Amino acid sequence: MKLSKDKKILIVGLGLLGGCYAMALKKQGFSVFAITLSQEDVDYALENGIIDKGTTKVDEEIIAEADIIVFALYPNVFKKWIEENAHLIKSGTVITDVTGVKECIVYDIQSRLPKGVEFISAHPMAGREVGGVQNSDDKIFKNANYIVVPTESNTQNAIELCKSLGETLGFAKISVLSPEEHDKMIAFLSQLTHCIAVSLMCANDNEDLVKYTGDSFRDLTRIANINDEMWSELFLLNRDALLSEMDAYRETFDKLYATIKNGNREEMRDMMCTSSVRRRKFDKKN
Amino acid sequence: MKLSKDKKILIVGLGLLGGCYAMALKKQGFSVFAITLSQEDVDYALENGIIDKGTTKVDEEIIAEADIIVFALYPNVFKKWIEENAHLIKSGTVITDVTGVKECIVYDIQSRLPKGVEFISAHPMAGREVGGVQNSDDKIFKNANYIVVPTESNTQNAIELCKSLGETLGFAKISVLSPEEHDKMIAFLSQLTHCIAVSLMCANDNEDLVKYTGDSFRDLTRIANINDEMWSELFLLNRDALLSEMDAYRETFDKLYATIKNGNREEMRDMMCTSSVRRRKFDKKN
Repeated sequence: MKLSKDKKILIVGLGLLGGCYAMALKKQGFSVFAITLSQEDVDYALENGIIDKGTTKVDEEIIAEADIIVFALYPNVFKKWIEENAHLIKSGTVITDVTGVKECIVYDIQSRLPKGVEFISAHPMAGREVGGVQNSDDKIFKNANYIVVPTESNTQNAIELCKSLGETLGFAKISVLSPEEHDKMIAFLSQLTHCIAVSLMCANDNEDLVKYTGDSFRDLTRIANINDEMWSELFLLNRDALLSEMDAYRETFDKLYATIKNGNREEMRDMMCTSSVRRRKFDKKN
Repeated sequence: MKLSKDKKILIVGLGLLGGCYAMALKKQGFSVFAITLSQEDVDYALENGIIDKGTTKVDEEIIAEADIIVFALYPNVFKKWIEENAHLIKSGTVITDVTGVKECIVYDIQSRLPKGVEFISAHPMAGREVGGVQNSDDKIFKNANYIVVPTESNTQNAIELCKSLGETLGFAKISVLSPEEHDKMIAFLSQLTHCIAVSLMCANDNEDLVKYTGDSFRDLTRIANINDEMWSELFLLNRDALLSEMDAYRETFDKLYATIKNGNREEMRDMMCTSSVRRRKFDKKN
């Protein structure tokens, strides 16, 4: 089931990502509506042609008009919204999301929906260090990965529709993972990297270092400027997978530490070679 | 003492950095000579107008003709070269280097030079993930930092000349640090970051992750493709400073780990805020 241009799409939560979705879909000619907390964001999006209509209320009419609803909310806010408002969603609607953790929300939300409403979860792996619809820019989807995260209760139709949404948004690569696979992958590739960057910035408060720093430190800590509200929630919602990746990483860090302490140059070079070989694979264009 | 255009400059070691020095200096009209191991590199540099003359031998005439000698060698190779050939350097010559560790080499080399020859050490904080004169590109100096690393035995004249060399090469910022300050700074900003990137790549061998990865992982591990011969030498030559920075970092990593394990969201968010505030200072243009 391809995403056809006559579909009306409602974005719930017009922050950075919600704004990027709206922007990309509007450009392609879709009707885009929004429900979000602040009137200022609605006004901004209307003035800049990012949405067709928007409201700060949980508006039954807009919800009923939508064929597809994209939830661009923090995980716990998304859960709460569904608990309170799921009954307003009309049968036949497909809902999706942008949430960065899956196992802890996908099954729960699928179980709370009215008959005929299907939730197909997705994770757009794109973002910026700044938030808000005012910073939205759909170029962030270019060259980025989009992951569809179905469960056994999803239909093939909804999975195809969700893939088609990812293509329409402009993502370079669309993949499919189970919620459990997704969370393990994200613990390593995304959450652990943020933990490392935050720990490094906390380890040394010498501001003078700015004037000596090179690109390697800047690149490695780019993500250390972090949205603490969102990421602390994501970390706790994926706690076991994250702790397990942190354990594995600390083990190799300690191993490298020991090679330096003991002057074991051969083993140190072995680790560096392993690292180089693996890293070169990540250079490849996807 | 400004670096005047009539100075003849000899580069010993025509690898990536030596090649960048030669390229930048030739463009500005200096006479540039080179001594390096491989005839292929000499030929390449001559054919591409990067040097005026070059040789694979320790040529007494070229050494005597040079006013300034830049050693772009690995630290231990540099030391060995000086032990064997220092007597060939004529009085009045100023020598400098590009070495990434200082305390363990600067004093030693200064003590081995003939009378009238002065060694003023420097660290150009620029590089690429690829080596060799064939990959040289003097654009890497733009926006980069150049650190002059004098000891008490250096003259003001040589310090000024070395600063002037950094400006001529096109560095954005020239700083001065003692060898001890330099090594502590480099342990944190450069060596620790390389240890982190290598450890992270060694912690997980799942090649499939390539297709899900986002920019944060790619940026954080860019330096994990590492020259194992050079970096293992640099790590061991700066062992105490590096181990101490690794200890401090592991302490904050463990602290963050504990906040996740114990669900202590407030402390986790405090660390993220500290991290964000500090990281934003590194966004500033120098």
